[in-house]
Amino acid sequence: MGRVNGIEHPATIRKESHATTTTRPSRPPAEALERVLAGPAGLGSAAIRFTPPQPGDPPGRGTPAPARIEGVYCPPAVRDDRALADLINAQLLEWADGVELFRSPDLRAGLLSFDPGRSVVLCHPDAPSTEHLLTAAKLLTGENAVDDYFCEPELGGAPEGLGARLAVAQSAIDPTHMPAPYDAHWRAALAGHPALRCMHAAMESLNRLATPAQAHRFRHEIASLYLGYEAEGACVQEERTPPVWEYLVQRQLNSFRPCLAITDAIGGYELPAELFALPAVQRATALASTASTVLNDLYSLRKEQASGRFHYSLPTVIAQEEDCAIDDAFAKAIDVHNDLVRAFETEAAALAAHPLTARYVTGLANWMGGNHEWHAGHVGGRYATSP
Amino acid sequence: MGRVNGIEHPATIRKESHATTTTRPSRPPAEALERVLAGPAGLGSAAIRFTPPQPGDPPGRGTPAPARIEGVYCPPAVRDDRALADLINAQLLEWADGVELFRSPDLRAGLLSFDPGRSVVLCHPDAPSTEHLLTAAKLLTGENAVDDYFCEPELGGAPEGLGARLAVAQSAIDPTHMPAPYDAHWRAALAGHPALRCMHAAMESLNRLATPAQAHRFRHEIASLYLGYEAEGACVQEERTPPVWEYLVQRQLNSFRPCLAITDAIGGYELPAELFALPAVQRATALASTASTVLNDLYSLRKEQASGRFHYSLPTVIAQEEDCAIDDAFAKAIDVHNDLVRAFETEAAALAAHPLTARYVTGLANWMGGNHEWHAGHVGGRYATSP
Repeated sequence: MGRVNGIEHPATIRKESHATTTTRPSRPPAEALERVLAGPAGLGSAAIRFTPPQPGDPPGRGTPAPARIEGVYCPPAVRDDRALADLINAQLLEWADGVELFRSPDLRAGLLSFDPGRSVVLCHPDAPSTEHLLTAAKLLTGENAVDDYFCEPELGGAPEGLGARLAVAQSAIDPTHMPAPYDAHWRAALAGHPALRCMHAAMESLNRLATPAQAHRFRHEIASLYLGYEAEGACVQEERTPPVWEYLVQRQLNSFRPCLAITDAIGGYELPAELFALPAVQRATALASTASTVLNDLYSLRKEQASGRFHYSLPTVIAQEEDCAIDDAFAKAIDVHNDLVRAFETEAAALAAHPLTARYVTGLANWMGGNHEWHAGHVGGRYATSP
Repeated sequence: MGRVNGIEHPATIRKESHATTTTRPSRPPAEALERVLAGPAGLGSAAIRFTPPQPGDPPGRGTPAPARIEGVYCPPAVRDDRALADLINAQLLEWADGVELFRSPDLRAGLLSFDPGRSVVLCHPDAPSTEHLLTAAKLLTGENAVDDYFCEPELGGAPEGLGARLAVAQSAIDPTHMPAPYDAHWRAALAGHPALRCMHAAMESLNRLATPAQAHRFRHEIASLYLGYEAEGACVQEERTPPVWEYLVQRQLNSFRPCLAITDAIGGYELPAELFALPAVQRATALASTASTVLNDLYSLRKEQASGRFHYSLPTVIAQEEDCAIDDAFAKAIDVHNDLVRAFETEAAALAAHPLTARYVTGLANWMGGNHEWHAGHVGGRYATSP
């Protein structure tokens, strides 16, 4: 896979055998064969999310060649593996059926077309087992389920009452300690909602392979994510487009960061909490996460604008603040993205002096590159390379 | 100070000399002498907060003897020191003037009548210096300032748009990393609001005496607190009284927990992050925090009910769920409080096997006892021992 559309870091994806994975698919999973060949749908401003494929969605994976936004600077992806991605997708769907995530067959097809297996295979090339990859996929699915069910209108979400729903969602991964009989009522509430079942079960998977400190870190990241969801919900409720600085404050919270910050847990090692807390590590994590999320803003802009709903993302907040055309704002947003990536690289270079932080920032860069490759693979489907 | 009003744990407060503090007041601070002898005002369901004293507020400190709610079970306070509290109050006011916290002299008087100095002196008997106590007082002040300015109606707060404001508030303690020129806009926004200046400066104080991991823990606790503020805001906006289980989910978030979880940092030692993250330590921390906050529900109920605003707290949610009189619900809420305290004590006993966790849970118990004493000291002012 070579240089496409002028990307400065050509994605040099090795079709390596995943020798370190503990399980290999003996045959293409039946579910994978039945995959709905539609582009991911419902990918909105609140990171990526899945909803049923829409009529008119062009065919997705395999049909258009990956295409990248010209001028976007990003580390390369380092591992791609369709068979492994299919295996993870199949295992994920089986698990999702088990927690009764889907209220309709359309939602199941939506998750499959989202291709979360390929996302985690691309983003976590150092995962030592399929269990690690599957756990990353479960958590990604849970985060998107909370967004879909609680925040977004398609599945009944709304800004009204969002704060109360997200407090309960947090309790699905960070238990509330309360006396009887109320604890039974709380457990019944968790069991009664698909997004809460999903997040709770995904967290149980993380608890099995992460240390308590890594699990605690993830809970913190999700609390931050929900603060970001609520910031977006507040602006949507008031139909207020924030200034660029405020948007970037929101975007550091409402971001892929929970996915990136588990790179060590999914990679089968631990960056100790006292190192993770260092300001330089925090800065590197934030820069990598915000850049990766702004990248989603760029690729999803056309779809969001076509939705007809009130929406804001980095290009649109720049267009409003600078009173410029969306094409110009798009170019400026690419510059912001690239500035974030370069700032990350500067921070990462300084952190390379310590073996554990070096390994961790390599994991962040791997995630950035994998995420870009995943987005590029959906161009021509849900995504586009221009406004 | 002996047994009052049937409290099961009589508060045995030693009037000990604070020999370990690094600074002693050479004379009663002028500010302390000018203290407005009014009860704390504006103490609402979202933990404690300060607002200007109201006409008709009865005189506060020194006038009524401390009185406790009958049947409340709570660890005792272990240190009280009026002179030290006055010193902290004076230093805190000087600092608050420096960050221009107060938009009116009334707000300044409100903070003083809230007596944060006594709160931190009672709650952190092991603090090794006045700097540690002052830092705890600054953080408490910042948390209340965010609540007052962003959430509560008296100072212009409202549920509408709250999510966006709290995202910015989080960035005051957890910096957003963004390129120029937007970073300058963000810094100007932080500098332009009293609550944001206050939280930012309080966090700088914590950073000076805490490890990066302790500072990171505090940022997590504040993110959780804000999730709790937003849960409450969502219910207030819809005037929806949640069921008891949901209220307790909210209360574990919207709680004094940020104050308790820094007991080691303010005590001058560190509970390492990998110990803090242990499920048993998390449970002990949550139980102590929720119990302490439910205690506030009990003492502040009469005032909240008199406010005429839509309000809910543990007694009122129980009254609605069980369709019972508020007096009965109040008694049941005391039972819930006591169950939480006993569950904490069970967890704390198990954690006493390790010296560091033993020290930490002792700090939690000290905080619970100090908090109770502080509330009892305001009975007859803002607080009451019955509905």
